[in-house]
Amino acid sequence: MTAPARSFSPRDPTDRKVLVTEVGTRDGFQAEPTPIPTATKVEILDALAAAGVPSFEATSFVSPRAVPQMADAAEVMARVARRPGVRLQALVPNARGAEAAAAARVDMIVCFVSASESHNEANLNKPIAGSLANVAEVARIARAAGIPLRGAVATAFGCPFEGDVPVDAVLRIVEAYVGEGVRHVSLGDTTGMATPPLVERAVEAIRGRFPAVEIALHFHNTRGIGLANVLAGLALGIREFESSIGGIGGCPFAPGATGNICTEDLVYLLHECGFETGIDLERLIAVARRVEEVVGHPLPGQVMKAGPRLRLHPIESVRRAVG
Amino acid sequence: MTAPARSFSPRDPTDRKVLVTEVGTRDGFQAEPTPIPTATKVEILDALAAAGVPSFEATSFVSPRAVPQMADAAEVMARVARRPGVRLQALVPNARGAEAAAAARVDMIVCFVSASESHNEANLNKPIAGSLANVAEVARIARAAGIPLRGAVATAFGCPFEGDVPVDAVLRIVEAYVGEGVRHVSLGDTTGMATPPLVERAVEAIRGRFPAVEIALHFHNTRGIGLANVLAGLALGIREFESSIGGIGGCPFAPGATGNICTEDLVYLLHECGFETGIDLERLIAVARRVEEVVGHPLPGQVMKAGPRLRLHPIESVRRAVG
Repeated sequence: MTAPARSFSPRDPTDRKVLVTEVGTRDGFQAEPTPIPTATKVEILDALAAAGVPSFEATSFVSPRAVPQMADAAEVMARVARRPGVRLQALVPNARGAEAAAAARVDMIVCFVSASESHNEANLNKPIAGSLANVAEVARIARAAGIPLRGAVATAFGCPFEGDVPVDAVLRIVEAYVGEGVRHVSLGDTTGMATPPLVERAVEAIRGRFPAVEIALHFHNTRGIGLANVLAGLALGIREFESSIGGIGGCPFAPGATGNICTEDLVYLLHECGFETGIDLERLIAVARRVEEVVGHPLPGQVMKAGPRLRLHPIESVRRAVG
Repeated sequence: MTAPARSFSPRDPTDRKVLVTEVGTRDGFQAEPTPIPTATKVEILDALAAAGVPSFEATSFVSPRAVPQMADAAEVMARVARRPGVRLQALVPNARGAEAAAAARVDMIVCFVSASESHNEANLNKPIAGSLANVAEVARIARAAGIPLRGAVATAFGCPFEGDVPVDAVLRIVEAYVGEGVRHVSLGDTTGMATPPLVERAVEAIRGRFPAVEIALHFHNTRGIGLANVLAGLALGIREFESSIGGIGGCPFAPGATGNICTEDLVYLLHECGFETGIDLERLIAVARRVEEVVGHPLPGQVMKAGPRLRLHPIESVRRAVG
């Protein structure tokens, strides 16, 4: 049993470490209409790793016709610096993607299936059952290559077409993953429908059935409560979160709404709550600014604008608030 | 003792009600460079009350030279509809403001003092001790008029000039308020420096010393964690929060950073966690859109863009995420 959430800091000193997985060069750059140059992707990945980010969903091995933004996946993996202790994951939709990812020597292959049929059809062009058959193929390829497999569950907290997603639908995917030897599961809040009670329900259901599975949470801030969901996850003892630098990425259904939770804002919250990430927040902010320059439009990250709380201001800068 | 935060919903059915105090027409409109017309302020206040918002910091009675945006305080109070069960508060810096607020028959007078000397000097042009003397005068006027007094503590979670604010500095202000008969205290996160552990520390310290005082929390989202702080407050049993419609308002020190937490996003989080506010979220969103039109620039609110989580999308709207 984890510490009660009334204390928002970890009580057990051995339980302070939180793994932050950066997904900006995949989930974020994929949402940009103009593909980002390969050299820039590599520059951003290297700068983030130098700032201490320990884990990345670096790219995805998908059809370049479907997702031209990720056409350079193999080249990104060939050019990015390999650092000890840094995990470079890649997302794959099928066996062909898994073979390419294995050839590129990724550190972890991530397969994915939606928990709702209509989203899976829209995203992967097949029913869930068909995607699970693909997962079996992907798992064989990963095993043969000696690469760990991670299983992502899209629309785990709700589907933009169907609404609520029953927790049993999530358990069904996790069960299939576990049957393929998966030990790391990531619950994807694909369009920002997660809430603290839904996070609690999903995490407790998975732990009840599959206590050995490690759960990561992938939140979007589409409805403004992404970091409240993180706080809920922390209180449940979750110690891995996925986020994107600067909050890069959007929501395909809601113009102007944000996508992934923002890495700097997440790291700021974690550090302030007494968790350790190994990440240098000031260097992270510098990378976020660089990403904003690269994409050429403002990013939703807040800490990159305001700075950490103890970055002080000269008193002359005050605008008098009240008379 | 409140329910443990591991359950992010209220366990006790008598403890479901959360009071949302809307501060947009004061804290939000004050941050707009161009004053908003009085008729528009009245329209927004009336529309919010019609949507079920039960409490407002409607305006402030301050020097029109210092804050021209609030020069119409008396007129706003004269023209806004008075509805049973709706509380219209006004902020006052001194006796003159209190007299004007009493003459305007506000439902509650709000006095304020910063917990840090340099912010109080910058904001009120006097040391904390001088402001506390003012509070005594304001309290006399409020008592004479039979109007309840609320005490706000600015920079309660940090000062942009001094950094950390000791909890004793907050207790000192609260003690002075209590001495003047104040029963409602609002802790102001003036420049978005609150964090879950700081919220816990302040709330527990005040409760320890002044168990009869009701605490409201006023967060800014300057560093992206405003609603995580709300979740922390809920877990501590706090049942009043201040926010602004659309997230209107900014941070004077951080261009592009957001100000107050957004009312619709707050109400969405509260409802999703099982709390009751009496507010109609769809009508609230409509008012947020109107406010965006009024100020003429995009507001940071997310739910006003994405809609509540169960506002579904036609499947044809999908942009395929991966191949």
